[in-house]
Amino acid sequence: MPAISNRGHQMPASPIRKLVPFAEEAAKRGTQIFYLNIGQPDIATPPQFMDAIRNVNIDVLAYSHSAGNESYRTKLAQYYTNQGIAITSTDLMITVGGSEAIVFAMMSCFNPGDEVIIPEPFYANYNGFATMAGVTVKPITASISNGFALPSSEAFEALITDKTKGIIICNPNNPTGYLYSKEELLALRDLALKYDLFLFADEVYRDFCYEGKEHISILTLDGLEQNAIVIDSVSKKYSACGARIGTLISRNKEVMSTALKFAQARLSPPTFEQIGAEAAIEVPSAYFEEVSTEYVSRRDLLVSRLNAMPGVTCPNPGGAFYVVVELPIDDSDKFCQWMLESFEHNGTTVMMAPATGFYATPGLGKKEVRMAYVLNKHDLDLAMDALQAGLIAYQKEMN
Amino acid sequence: MPAISNRGHQMPASPIRKLVPFAEEAAKRGTQIFYLNIGQPDIATPPQFMDAIRNVNIDVLAYSHSAGNESYRTKLAQYYTNQGIAITSTDLMITVGGSEAIVFAMMSCFNPGDEVIIPEPFYANYNGFATMAGVTVKPITASISNGFALPSSEAFEALITDKTKGIIICNPNNPTGYLYSKEELLALRDLALKYDLFLFADEVYRDFCYEGKEHISILTLDGLEQNAIVIDSVSKKYSACGARIGTLISRNKEVMSTALKFAQARLSPPTFEQIGAEAAIEVPSAYFEEVSTEYVSRRDLLVSRLNAMPGVTCPNPGGAFYVVVELPIDDSDKFCQWMLESFEHNGTTVMMAPATGFYATPGLGKKEVRMAYVLNKHDLDLAMDALQAGLIAYQKEMN
Repeated sequence: MPAISNRGHQMPASPIRKLVPFAEEAAKRGTQIFYLNIGQPDIATPPQFMDAIRNVNIDVLAYSHSAGNESYRTKLAQYYTNQGIAITSTDLMITVGGSEAIVFAMMSCFNPGDEVIIPEPFYANYNGFATMAGVTVKPITASISNGFALPSSEAFEALITDKTKGIIICNPNNPTGYLYSKEELLALRDLALKYDLFLFADEVYRDFCYEGKEHISILTLDGLEQNAIVIDSVSKKYSACGARIGTLISRNKEVMSTALKFAQARLSPPTFEQIGAEAAIEVPSAYFEEVSTEYVSRRDLLVSRLNAMPGVTCPNPGGAFYVVVELPIDDSDKFCQWMLESFEHNGTTVMMAPATGFYATPGLGKKEVRMAYVLNKHDLDLAMDALQAGLIAYQKEMN
Repeated sequence: MPAISNRGHQMPASPIRKLVPFAEEAAKRGTQIFYLNIGQPDIATPPQFMDAIRNVNIDVLAYSHSAGNESYRTKLAQYYTNQGIAITSTDLMITVGGSEAIVFAMMSCFNPGDEVIIPEPFYANYNGFATMAGVTVKPITASISNGFALPSSEAFEALITDKTKGIIICNPNNPTGYLYSKEELLALRDLALKYDLFLFADEVYRDFCYEGKEHISILTLDGLEQNAIVIDSVSKKYSACGARIGTLISRNKEVMSTALKFAQARLSPPTFEQIGAEAAIEVPSAYFEEVSTEYVSRRDLLVSRLNAMPGVTCPNPGGAFYVVVELPIDDSDKFCQWMLESFEHNGTTVMMAPATGFYATPGLGKKEVRMAYVLNKHDLDLAMDALQAGLIAYQKEMN
């Protein structure tokens, strides 16, 4: 019997999903679970998106262009230009979700054995994409004590070796919700230029910046044109996670022509969702304002409920729809499993993502969990009731 | 300015698409082009597929299961079982096209540096997937003189080293249309078992076998349960290339659980096309009979027209919708470009795929082209008129 590959062994299992069997068991017992573990918004996908798909009238479901439908790319370039990111349709490519955009970018820019620096905690699937590309992730630890701000340039420089080929950020950040400032982004630009690095920015939460805070795309930073690679997606923007439509953007022609070779090998992105996503460009800004207002009120509820619990610390992040929160616990994996396996409060419990899965440095994140505020406020409030009771019960049981 | 990766440099450009600019120029001049270069069928996608998508009624376009919707997987397992391939829903996974299925399988089974043997000519994108996985392709040459039958076991054994970890076939074959016999498949099974190799079979053309010839899936070969990996797709089956819905099938639990980790990293396949593909399982067998009848009559027209041309040799293949044909030319790349750039016949010309792109051995395929008989017979006939005239004009011009 042939053995699977070492790469297969190294490929990390999804840390977000490893608790799923315990959740399934709890659900079978009749416990109501509040799912704060995954960034699946409950917001309705805009009708423009869905209606365009329902109205598709084609006879033969043919391959689209490997870079995505030209009409969509043209409108998308105009959309970014209108937002102050002046690009043409050749600076972007439609991918199968933001996931594929990162894989294509990694494979185009990095050799097996190259190192990339990523502030941790970070989106856990970056580990999987790095494994696919044979790239070594060098984590640089951000601290909950300053809300997960960018570590200093000196801390980055201490990690840079002759194998370092890139830095990857997610802005606003998943899992922390942190929104990077102009100063932080300029510091990253200076590092990228000084050490000749690619700077990847996963900007899939760019439409979720709160209290008038401005999202700054790395595509707007002077001098970074050849180094900047941006990943975007319709998943969070239009609450269309199941569409699997993303975008890879760079003004570096060699990167884009190389990524196109990877895109051609897999032929094309899915047809119907491209049509939906193209139509969604017409979604008015009022949609985003309404969604933002909703998320801000959820965040405020969640953060205030959390900080009111004894021993709990939760920063108040500027974007996305996540928080990483420190709890008075010994082991977040154990606690999150316990909440599903051994606890309920008025017939309910909470599913959270242990933060350990978002750190590459072993041992970090044991007191932290990630929560996505993707439930309505009524449910969030009940989830916090359950968490509060759970923390008390857990501490009692552990003593 | 940071350099792109060596992998990016090594990534092959699509050999099928490199003539596209010349075709675009020809179209601009008003020349009618018969596109025999790409396997994009003109057959209508079945209404079951399209109607299911039009009738989707969901509010939030959420992630589906990483392995694909459970209802679809369950029906698909039953579908294969009904066809004599007894599998359960845990033996398969829905992927983003057959392309992703091959990439996941390669990454799960092979280490960077491992070797896989593939009979050439082969589907050119296998080169790209191998580059992504860091795998070295060792071609074994099939000959047009016996219709591209499987090379002998001795020829395979001569290529096997301690780095060899797999054999990849496509059955029925793209680009040759060759349908492997039971004896050939048993020979491959014996090799896989003797040398502890994975045997991948790309069976995406399995529904296109002609004149009552039976397709034999490697999943039906006794003793090969732990070695056999099958790739399938709805692209050709339902003329739904733009759907990007494929299937990875194996009874090897370790392979499937490893592939699932890759699938989880990219979250899920596209939602709408999964719904369409699930509904398409109900497409009656009469659809395939009708489609097969059409393809057979096209193939017969094409093959007889080709063999009637002086100096042209075309085998009569048993499946798929391709032929690889030997032409009286010096260089298929040059000839195919010339047909677009410098020739027309009654305002028409033909776009073909030079066979060089389907061989890994340098220098092979210079007298061969691949044609896909994906046009109606009237157009095919006109295409053959243009080719016949083109061959005469080309030979004149070259002398």
